Amino acid sequence: MPSAINRQWILSSRPTGLVGPEHFTLREGAMPVPGPGEVLVRTVLLSLDPANRAWMSPTPTYKAPVEPGDVMHGFALGEVVASNDPAFAPGDLADGMIGWQDFAAVPAAELTRRSPGHRPEHLMGVLGVTGLTAYFGLLEIGLPKAGETVLVSAAAGAVGSIVGQIARLKGCRVIGTAGGPDKCRWLMDELGFDAAIDYKAGGVRRALKQAAPDGIDVYFDNTGGEVLQAALFLMNERGRVVACGNVSQYNAERPEPGPMGVPGLMVVKRLRMEGFIVTDFYHRREPAERELAAWVASGAVKAAEDIVDGLEGAPVALSQLFEGRNRGKLLVRVSNPTA
Amino acid sequence: MPSAINRQWILSSRPTGLVGPEHFTLREGAMPVPGPGEVLVRTVLLSLDPANRAWMSPTPTYKAPVEPGDVMHGFALGEVVASNDPAFAPGDLADGMIGWQDFAAVPAAELTRRSPGHRPEHLMGVLGVTGLTAYFGLLEIGLPKAGETVLVSAAAGAVGSIVGQIARLKGCRVIGTAGGPDKCRWLMDELGFDAAIDYKAGGVRRALKQAAPDGIDVYFDNTGGEVLQAALFLMNERGRVVACGNVSQYNAERPEPGPMGVPGLMVVKRLRMEGFIVTDFYHRREPAERELAAWVASGAVKAAEDIVDGLEGAPVALSQLFEGRNRGKLLVRVSNPTA
Repeated sequence: MPSAINRQWILSSRPTGLVGPEHFTLREGAMPVPGPGEVLVRTVLLSLDPANRAWMSPTPTYKAPVEPGDVMHGFALGEVVASNDPAFAPGDLADGMIGWQDFAAVPAAELTRRSPGHRPEHLMGVLGVTGLTAYFGLLEIGLPKAGETVLVSAAAGAVGSIVGQIARLKGCRVIGTAGGPDKCRWLMDELGFDAAIDYKAGGVRRALKQAAPDGIDVYFDNTGGEVLQAALFLMNERGRVVACGNVSQYNAERPEPGPMGVPGLMVVKRLRMEGFIVTDFYHRREPAERELAAWVASGAVKAAEDIVDGLEGAPVALSQLFEGRNRGKLLVRVSNPTA
Repeated sequence: MPSAINRQWILSSRPTGLVGPEHFTLREGAMPVPGPGEVLVRTVLLSLDPANRAWMSPTPTYKAPVEPGDVMHGFALGEVVASNDPAFAPGDLADGMIGWQDFAAVPAAELTRRSPGHRPEHLMGVLGVTGLTAYFGLLEIGLPKAGETVLVSAAAGAVGSIVGQIARLKGCRVIGTAGGPDKCRWLMDELGFDAAIDYKAGGVRRALKQAAPDGIDVYFDNTGGEVLQAALFLMNERGRVVACGNVSQYNAERPEPGPMGVPGLMVVKRLRMEGFIVTDFYHRREPAERELAAWVASGAVKAAEDIVDGLEGAPVALSQLFEGRNRGKLLVRVSNPTA
């Protein structure tokens, strides 16, 4: 058995505005012991996502909130150390809600075994929740058609960077918004976006109008806020807004009013705005993963990851996520798989 | 030929706020002469709808705005007086954009012949655009299932009163909002609504929470504004918002911000909000009309009309539409069919 120390990041207080390291405390707990039907996993890669912030609010989302005193919730890839369930064996890689800690005992039913043969970083990015969110959200909710214009916000992020590349593969004109000229250049030069708009430079609506002379058919919304507002005015008739995230608001102390044009423009332009959660599509996860893996293998989709080394860095990395410092999928490397 | 006088209501100035008789001038024009392929119709029933107000704004909607100096646009049922198209014969009833006038020469392609054997008032209400809007919007966009809770705003109006009754037929719990206790009683006692909320009495959100203890699955939104805001907070996961109208805002001088919770609640609750226009479904108009006619014949759906006599009353009646004086479909009787 590995070291009996289990480092755990505890939510010490709920943030009301911006989340930061001051909301977490590092504790050393005992090694968890798996009960009947449980699996002991060692955390390999911890996923940092905007949704983490939403879980810290007292309002339930699609899952119960994290309570102060709890180990911070987190989706992670782990390596099985010991198993009381025949479906898992030591050395297997599995993902699930392992939390911000070195080890966890998790009911087998709450873990998903991941196929070997892929880079662990890919399993947590383009072949994981983020990639599948991009894939199903764009293709099933956005329904892009070749020749259409697709806009994606937070385009340099984990989901947005994949959304834009899939939209290109489907023959769409692709526009992304991101923070800063470096990310915008990266989107165009490396990921093949047709246009990229630096939302921090101001004048988003005007820039978007120039970048989308034929209007917008699909807007994949990761942010809400200013980009959603600008997009609504530029949506074409029968346009689709994929409501994936609202990252501009996750740190807000009180909810902002919604964008002008809801519901008026929805009626006049016959728009559809639709939220979704990736797990709704998990019955079709395998073929989607295979298609994404083939795109990555052929170079048609570039997977980008931003890796922070060591569990101790998780709170700072989460706050940096909201400063938009990362490109692609933000992960914390907690340990290396033994296999 | 009938009298050579053709009374016409002209849009004399664009309203910026509430529309009233001061925005219209009555003119006597010459009898129009139908050109090749055109049909001369005498107006029988003129439809007054919230959308009329939207057409008076300079911003294009799904059709071009009415320009000052134009005959006010209006959807109407007419009787064919003379026809230069073989598809129409004198005595036929047809509907289309005839306008606020006694007579119009309309291209045959822009008219729809209506089947005989129905009351003209029904042809313009439950069997016309309003009834079909309720039918397709609820059944195709709202997708109600038996046992679900359906909320409809402006429930005593032309569309809302039909929406609620169809939802009842489909086995749903039906809640309506309307202005004033008389309309609310009418919804419950005459139309079979399970609950009705007087939005003028204040406390809409609390009243709605009481009326919908299991939350709301489908919200058929005719109004936007306060009811939409309250509904969003009470929507169940995977709820559907049918964006049909925004009557609370049509007289607004500047657009209001949208409701809080867009897009945040859309994401978290996986909501769908979708605008539509009834003509998108016109390829399926005939079976829908037949089903509606059968429901009316059996008494399962009660058609309600509010009839104003005489073209001269149209401007006052339109302003009263926004005061919410009518119950059911508001029509102006301009003439009686000869057949």
